[in-house]
Amino acid sequence: MAGNKIAPIRLDVRHMFAASLGRGLGLSAGHLERIKPLAATVHDDLVRQRRRGELLIHRLPQQQDTGPVKRVARRLRRTVQDLVVLGIGGSAPGAVALQTALCPPFYNLLPDAKRKGPRLFVMDNVDPDTFAALLDLLRGREVAVNVISKSGGTAETMAQFMVVYHRLKRQLGPDKLRERLILTTDPSSGNLRRIAQEEGLTALDVPPAVGGRYSVLTPVGLLPAATVGIDIDALLSGAGAMARRCSKADPVANPAYALGAALHLADAALGRRVHVLMPYADGLRQFAAWYAQLWAESLGKRYDRSGREVNVGPTPVAALGATDQHSQLQLYMEGPLDKVVMFMFVESFRRKVAIPKVFRAIDGLSYLGGHDLGRLLQAEGFATRAALTQAGRMNLTITLPAVDAPSVGQALMLFEAATVFAGGLYAVNPLDQPGVELSKKLTYGLLGRPGFEDYAARVPTDMRFKN
Amino acid sequence: MAGNKIAPIRLDVRHMFAASLGRGLGLSAGHLERIKPLAATVHDDLVRQRRRGELLIHRLPQQQDTGPVKRVARRLRRTVQDLVVLGIGGSAPGAVALQTALCPPFYNLLPDAKRKGPRLFVMDNVDPDTFAALLDLLRGREVAVNVISKSGGTAETMAQFMVVYHRLKRQLGPDKLRERLILTTDPSSGNLRRIAQEEGLTALDVPPAVGGRYSVLTPVGLLPAATVGIDIDALLSGAGAMARRCSKADPVANPAYALGAALHLADAALGRRVHVLMPYADGLRQFAAWYAQLWAESLGKRYDRSGREVNVGPTPVAALGATDQHSQLQLYMEGPLDKVVMFMFVESFRRKVAIPKVFRAIDGLSYLGGHDLGRLLQAEGFATRAALTQAGRMNLTITLPAVDAPSVGQALMLFEAATVFAGGLYAVNPLDQPGVELSKKLTYGLLGRPGFEDYAARVPTDMRFKN
Repeated sequence: MAGNKIAPIRLDVRHMFAASLGRGLGLSAGHLERIKPLAATVHDDLVRQRRRGELLIHRLPQQQDTGPVKRVARRLRRTVQDLVVLGIGGSAPGAVALQTALCPPFYNLLPDAKRKGPRLFVMDNVDPDTFAALLDLLRGREVAVNVISKSGGTAETMAQFMVVYHRLKRQLGPDKLRERLILTTDPSSGNLRRIAQEEGLTALDVPPAVGGRYSVLTPVGLLPAATVGIDIDALLSGAGAMARRCSKADPVANPAYALGAALHLADAALGRRVHVLMPYADGLRQFAAWYAQLWAESLGKRYDRSGREVNVGPTPVAALGATDQHSQLQLYMEGPLDKVVMFMFVESFRRKVAIPKVFRAIDGLSYLGGHDLGRLLQAEGFATRAALTQAGRMNLTITLPAVDAPSVGQALMLFEAATVFAGGLYAVNPLDQPGVELSKKLTYGLLGRPGFEDYAARVPTDMRFKN
Repeated sequence: MAGNKIAPIRLDVRHMFAASLGRGLGLSAGHLERIKPLAATVHDDLVRQRRRGELLIHRLPQQQDTGPVKRVARRLRRTVQDLVVLGIGGSAPGAVALQTALCPPFYNLLPDAKRKGPRLFVMDNVDPDTFAALLDLLRGREVAVNVISKSGGTAETMAQFMVVYHRLKRQLGPDKLRERLILTTDPSSGNLRRIAQEEGLTALDVPPAVGGRYSVLTPVGLLPAATVGIDIDALLSGAGAMARRCSKADPVANPAYALGAALHLADAALGRRVHVLMPYADGLRQFAAWYAQLWAESLGKRYDRSGREVNVGPTPVAALGATDQHSQLQLYMEGPLDKVVMFMFVESFRRKVAIPKVFRAIDGLSYLGGHDLGRLLQAEGFATRAALTQAGRMNLTITLPAVDAPSVGQALMLFEAATVFAGGLYAVNPLDQPGVELSKKLTYGLLGRPGFEDYAARVPTDMRFKN
């Protein structure tokens, strides 16, 4: 699919401005003027990082060999009924977002004949009740397991892996195990790579320069997606088209810069530190969760690039329209002026559900008859946007032609590129996560990992259960 | 089950205080002293409201006749394979929270023989792709539909209802329709009640004094729960035990007052306006979503009780441990000092999944062997709490003996009672939601509802799609 045939997703930031919201309630021309030099510097810096290969995300759609992913996916679709993904953090929400957006609703409940691939179970936690129930559910089924950890050392994923490896090896024998276990990890380093080499397991590469939370368009997200029948070429075409738009220097032509700058300025200049993503489509509910991990972990930082303590970072919130109009909207309309609401609207749905003209004699219901659910959902979105705007509440809109592979590919790339740009504006490193190390080390200490003995003592016994 | 045999859930607010976190980073004795008179006034006010019957939540566990719910649930469990709940806002998340916490994981995927009741589909949105897929999925199945709207006028729920009513009536005929359609609504007013009366449909009552978001322990949550085999007596016993604790005047003995005051003070005195609920159990993931709607809509208010414009309200965030340690924790550890993290820990899980001693030669993995997943999950929680505490970040802990009906009942009541108490401290009405009216009226305008013509013009045509 050629990039120029892709229906573009659109960004509308008009209602981020005081001209729409009222004096003092939105951004002004002055805000934009003042940030221009910084934005230009950040752009130059990103161009340099891309040339040096330190920032790879823009290149993934075009320069990635998807051959290995497609071969493995084809084999799995032929041979297994269930695919289990073991992964956490950046390794899980991308696959979940793709599956929920691009497979039919209730995917795992459909009979085998109505699915294009195996059922998919993304296990992003170590809750024993869930994991034991999964093992029960898989009994007697043909199962493949995709273990995803870039470092090969993630405690949760490795623990799950050890449980599954032990069982599969016993059940299938070492030969069949090799067909059913796929490790997605760093091309050369880490324990998962070592195990893949020692045991001759299939392994797929996560490019070293792509961090976990930016990895949805690598085999991390692409293998599960291709296995459940998603058109990953269309997905990557969409992402590639957006990557081209997001390479431009001019923020007006570059939606990632417009998005990143609007959100950064809302926080830095006006204290709008809660950034809500509210799609009006069930299929994008998990996209919002994917955004939440990307935005939080990339921008929430103690130190800026120069080592100054800054403690910055917006709080992302994943919402869903119209559902959360009856849950969060009261707060968004009337609470503190600390939020930006990002709407995601969808122009056309796959299905049409007409509302029949029943209860014609009942005043409060008859107006609904003759409409359809898609139109109702859209009207609710427009109404909520107008209400927030009229209340002087900052909001912006991303419009997708449809919830399809090209649009979702564009949306993923838009947010990834906006995140690295916003990182530049916040003057933090959007690619690291130093703040999670202490918790990891304390866990190692509690579990008796050699070398971490001192950390156990840092969790006082009155802060644990007795067992 | 007698209330005194219920294993109590525990609240630990030690790490909300400067004594644990460091000077200026937490609450002080002075904060507590200064809020005492206000807390006493709020308590007196709540006692008055309860006596006058304006505040019913504490009474629901003891004084509710669950006979009608149990009779309908028993009939449905005998006769149907699928139960569809149509509801949005307060009418949906309670049922979802109960089902995910108290039914086996992957409930809808289990074969009929392994479930205690029908599959459950809670339809909390009007996305046509989801709704059409649901209708496909239900083809050839024995289905019941529970329509929940206290007012009987919720546009989304009524639209869904009209679609389903039309189909069911055609497919089943009017007699069987009466068995399969259950309306949960106000006892005397509204369109749903009127339809129930005119068509002789089964209807269950939502007590007029209980608002949607506080309704999980009325037929709104109890009918779906009982139908999928949840022990609603045990649930209500737990809630009743907590209601007794939450009736005491002394904040030390009353966990709702301790919780509400700690969170309110964190916001009002120290600017901790983001209140994260982070359970360490998959079964409580949707409990956190239930909390988010309760907290946001109850406390996010423009005007205080005296009519002064205040624009207050904390932002609730639903997280999940250990998953979000790899997603949100970076922000919680290093971002702005604007959050409280509420942990929910679980003392014992239902299942045990041992981590086998494989890969003994690999340094970074061998320490995991011999532990089990539950212990790993708990250790991660303790480690994360210790890390946040050592970083001077406010946090509190709610510990559940287990994810079972008595504990979940207690937790629901704890948060409901804490919400109304916090409403008193914020000096707002925690039972209303005036801020969502404009969006509703604009939607009516866009859909051509008579009487709302003027509102259509308030959504400019360049703010809608052309169709």
